[in-house]
Amino acid sequence: MAAKNTQVLMKQHPKGGVTEQDFEIVEREIPKPGPDQVLVRNIYLSLDPYMRGRMDPVRSYAAHLHPGDLMIGGTVGEVIESNVPSLPKGTYVNGMLGWQEYGVAKANELRVLDPKVAPISTALGVLGMPGCTAHYGLMEIGQPKPGETVVVSAASGAVGSVVGQIAKIKGCRVVGIAGGKAKCDYVVTELGFDACIDYKAGDMHAAFKAATPERVDVYFENVGGEIMEMVFGRLNSFARVAICGLIAQYNGQPYPFTGMRHVLVNRAKVQGFIISEHMSYWPGAITEMGGWIKEGKLKYREDIADGLRNAPQAFIGLLSGRNFGKQLVRIGPEKL
Amino acid sequence: MAAKNTQVLMKQHPKGGVTEQDFEIVEREIPKPGPDQVLVRNIYLSLDPYMRGRMDPVRSYAAHLHPGDLMIGGTVGEVIESNVPSLPKGTYVNGMLGWQEYGVAKANELRVLDPKVAPISTALGVLGMPGCTAHYGLMEIGQPKPGETVVVSAASGAVGSVVGQIAKIKGCRVVGIAGGKAKCDYVVTELGFDACIDYKAGDMHAAFKAATPERVDVYFENVGGEIMEMVFGRLNSFARVAICGLIAQYNGQPYPFTGMRHVLVNRAKVQGFIISEHMSYWPGAITEMGGWIKEGKLKYREDIADGLRNAPQAFIGLLSGRNFGKQLVRIGPEKL
Repeated sequence: MAAKNTQVLMKQHPKGGVTEQDFEIVEREIPKPGPDQVLVRNIYLSLDPYMRGRMDPVRSYAAHLHPGDLMIGGTVGEVIESNVPSLPKGTYVNGMLGWQEYGVAKANELRVLDPKVAPISTALGVLGMPGCTAHYGLMEIGQPKPGETVVVSAASGAVGSVVGQIAKIKGCRVVGIAGGKAKCDYVVTELGFDACIDYKAGDMHAAFKAATPERVDVYFENVGGEIMEMVFGRLNSFARVAICGLIAQYNGQPYPFTGMRHVLVNRAKVQGFIISEHMSYWPGAITEMGGWIKEGKLKYREDIADGLRNAPQAFIGLLSGRNFGKQLVRIGPEKL
Repeated sequence: MAAKNTQVLMKQHPKGGVTEQDFEIVEREIPKPGPDQVLVRNIYLSLDPYMRGRMDPVRSYAAHLHPGDLMIGGTVGEVIESNVPSLPKGTYVNGMLGWQEYGVAKANELRVLDPKVAPISTALGVLGMPGCTAHYGLMEIGQPKPGETVVVSAASGAVGSVVGQIAKIKGCRVVGIAGGKAKCDYVVTELGFDACIDYKAGDMHAAFKAATPERVDVYFENVGGEIMEMVFGRLNSFARVAICGLIAQYNGQPYPFTGMRHVLVNRAKVQGFIISEHMSYWPGAITEMGGWIKEGKLKYREDIADGLRNAPQAFIGLLSGRNFGKQLVRIGPEKL
C-alpha cells in the first residue's frame, strides 16, 4: 500500500481545447474511512465525454468543477479497509471515486461487482454507464421498430457500439459513423453494422446518402457539428433523435446548426437525456446486456491507458476521437 | 353571380423572399359540380405561413406547388349549387378550396358551419386550423403544468394568441414575443399574458431574461431564427418545445442555430408537428375553445384584406409580420 494518494485535479478551466496544463497531479494523504465507510483502492478509471462539460464554468445539469477540485469519474476498485459489514475487504465495487488512487465511500454510493459474471472493467463500459446510456437512449427515446434505419455517431465508442448492436438485435438497418478505416471496419465486420461512414474519408455526404436509401428513422447523437447537420437532412417523417452527446462541440465554438427545419417538416422528436437520472432503468438493462454478451450477440472493446498520471493525455485523446473502444485508465492491478 | 372564376396561381417558385411577381391572377370558367359535389362561393380565404413552404420545390410533408398551380388555402363559403342532399343551397362550409372565388367539393371534403354558434370566419382561425394547432401543440407536446412558464413567439398571431390564452387558463406564467408595441400591448392588456417582449425594441435579450426569472418550461415556436436561439438559451430542465413554424427562416437563408447544447444539458424535448395529421383531435378542441369564447376567456382578432386580388400582398405582409391577428381575405360578402 502506497504511503500517498495520487490525485488528478482540475487546475484551471480549459480555454477552448483541453490541454495537460489544465490538470495538476498531486499527492495527498490516503483518507481514513469513517464509521459507515469503506476505503477503496481504485483499479480502473472511466474517461467519458461528459467530463468535459463539468470543466466549464457554465450552467449545466450538474455542478461544474472549480480550480483545485478533484476530477470526477467512475471507478472500479477493491475494498481494502471496511467499516461496513456488507462490504468486506476484497469486495470489488463500482463507484464515482474520481481520478485518484484511493477513495472512501458509503455503501449506498457503491455497486458490488461479481468478477465471475463479467470482467470488472465492464462495469465502466458495456455493463455500466455507457451501456445503460446506449440501451436507454435507443429503446426509450429512439423506440426502434424492425426494418427501420438507425444511425449512430461515434459508432465504435463505448456508447455507439452498444447502440448499434442492440439496434441489430431489434431487427433494424444500422449505419454507423466513425473516424477512420480501422474503426469503420471493426464496426461492420466485428459488430455487424450494415454500413459505417468514415467521416475522415472525404466523401462523407455521398457515402451517407448511399448508406441510408430509406432515410433515417432513429438517430443516436454523440458528436454534433457537421455530422449532426448531415443526419438531420436525411431524417424521415416521425424520426426520433436521442441527443446523448455533442463531443465535436465541446471544445471551442458551437457548430451553427441549420437543421431545425427538418424537425418541423418531418414532425421529428429530438430529446436530450442524462442516464444518471434513470437509475431504476439500469438493473434491467444490465441483466439483458449481460445475457447478450454471454450469447455472443453483444461485443465490446476497451482502450486502456496505463497509470493515473496518463489520464489527462488519454482524456484529451478521447475528446478528439483517438481512442478505439471504451477509454479506461488502469490505476492499479486487479489483484495486489 | 359573376360569369368567371377569379383565381390566384403560383406563377413561379419564389427566389428567396416572396414577391407579387410570383403570383398570377387569372379568370377561368366557374366549375360545374359533379353528381356527388357542391359548388361553393368562397367568402373568406385563410392566409397561413405553411403556404410558404409549399411554394418551394423541396421535399416536405406535403407535395409542393408547381408553376401554374392554384394556390392552396383554407376557405369558408356558401353552397350555391348542390348535388348533395345533406348540403343544401345556403349551407356555410369550411374546406380547402384555395385562392379562388368558386370551387367544387365532395361532402367529405367540407365541414358544415353553424353561423349561430360563431361567426363563420372563426372556422379559419380560433375555431379552425390555427386554433387546433395552438391547442394540440401546447397541450399534447408542451404539456404545461400550473405555475410553469410558457413562452410563445408570434404571440399576437392566429396561433400564438390562442396558445398564450390557453396557457393562462391552465394556470401558467405566459410570456409572449411579438413585433411592435401595439401587438405587445394587445397581448398583455387584451389577452392577459403576463408579459410580452417586443423583438423590435432593441433590448430583446435583457427584456426576455427579466420576463422569465424562472426560465422557460414550455416553448411554442412559430418563428425560429434569433428568437429561437434566445429562448433555447433560457430553457429549464425537462423543457418541452413544440416546433410549429419557423417563419423567420422561410424566406432566404436558414438561421444558424447554436442551441442544441441546451437540449442536451436540459434534457429537453423538441418536437415538430402538423395539425392536419391529428384530425381526430379537432372536434374536442373546437368544442372546448368554443366554450371558452362564450365565457369570455378566449379572445381573437382578425386582420381582413379585402378582395382576392389583394391576397398576394396580404400574404407577403403575413410573412414579414405586418398582419395583426388572424390574416383573412374577404373574397365576397357573407350574404349575397
